[in-house]
Amino acid sequence: MNKGTLLVLSGSSGVGKGTIIAQVLEKRPELYLSVSCTTRAPRPGEVDGVNYYFISREEFQTRIERGEFLEYAEYVGNYYGTSMTVIREKLEKGVDVLLEIEVQGAAKVRERMPEAVSVFIVPPSFEELAQRLRGRGTDSEEKIQKRLETARREAKEIKNYDYIVVNDTVDHAAQEVLAILTAQGCRTERRIHEIEGV
Amino acid sequence: MNKGTLLVLSGSSGVGKGTIIAQVLEKRPELYLSVSCTTRAPRPGEVDGVNYYFISREEFQTRIERGEFLEYAEYVGNYYGTSMTVIREKLEKGVDVLLEIEVQGAAKVRERMPEAVSVFIVPPSFEELAQRLRGRGTDSEEKIQKRLETARREAKEIKNYDYIVVNDTVDHAAQEVLAILTAQGCRTERRIHEIEGV
Repeated sequence: MNKGTLLVLSGSSGVGKGTIIAQVLEKRPELYLSVSCTTRAPRPGEVDGVNYYFISREEFQTRIERGEFLEYAEYVGNYYGTSMTVIREKLEKGVDVLLEIEVQGAAKVRERMPEAVSVFIVPPSFEELAQRLRGRGTDSEEKIQKRLETARREAKEIKNYDYIVVNDTVDHAAQEVLAILTAQGCRTERRIHEIEGV
Repeated sequence: MNKGTLLVLSGSSGVGKGTIIAQVLEKRPELYLSVSCTTRAPRPGEVDGVNYYFISREEFQTRIERGEFLEYAEYVGNYYGTSMTVIREKLEKGVDVLLEIEVQGAAKVRERMPEAVSVFIVPPSFEELAQRLRGRGTDSEEKIQKRLETARREAKEIKNYDYIVVNDTVDHAAQEVLAILTAQGCRTERRIHEIEGV
């Protein structure tokens, strides 16, 4: 039985990860999108169990103590964490898992699951990113500046990722993420057990 | 300036490499298909400078002495070789290069250019391969048996390749080769120099 691929996806806030992931899932509905737990408040339209599991700070801390998280991190004042059990089950069944996660979390996942494949999504430029954040209209200018600072800091971590995808258009970026997943499924260590006479 | 990818493609005789490559080139006409030199006689329909450079045994040996080949090998009584100069020029210009080559040659290319990415194309089964070879109608049964033996021997080398593509349908196989090329173009070491703030 071949294991699935764990695809770790990071990218600056506002770069369009959500839209890219939605398109990837549309093309490959058999993928499992890992749902993180968070203590931050839901944004308008976000659904519990779909975008995140929204849980209290207290509940989050209990789960930390139980060792339930593959990784967790505090980010802009809130906890974000990834439950390990479900991911491992899916991978064992040969299902590819998509995990959207910020850079600190990704570093921890790479440490604990070195077989994970990681992708960093970048905007065409920081200027473009600033425009997109302003266009979203959900953040104050101060918050936007803070996000841009974070983006510049995070850019230093890109070298630790396996792949870089530039979100010039959603179609193009989604197509590249899909190609990375397809290529990963063709890797010799993944496929060799199915091959006759090897 | 980012370098191109050298994609090394091997597969058993009769597996359909030519058809897959034709489809890949149709979708990505900017690819450069490396043309090998050989001392074997052209098959019906094969064109000098397109399928191979068909040269004499004497000429081939002169080029060996001059060190012009990235690799060369004798195979079923004929020489096959890859000229190094053109490939290096294309890669330096950022052009992806496709190199169809048998397993011994591929091993030498990997040795001399470890950055090459290698793909082995397999038939769905050996039985299917035998049927395809018979269907081609160009070889005697004895020759077909010899090719099948070679295919079984070559299967032992698959583990040295980066990727395996199963030629169940040409469309599907070509799509996987294209995905491998696209993914390769997204690799961090390839793209990081274009990224702002890294």
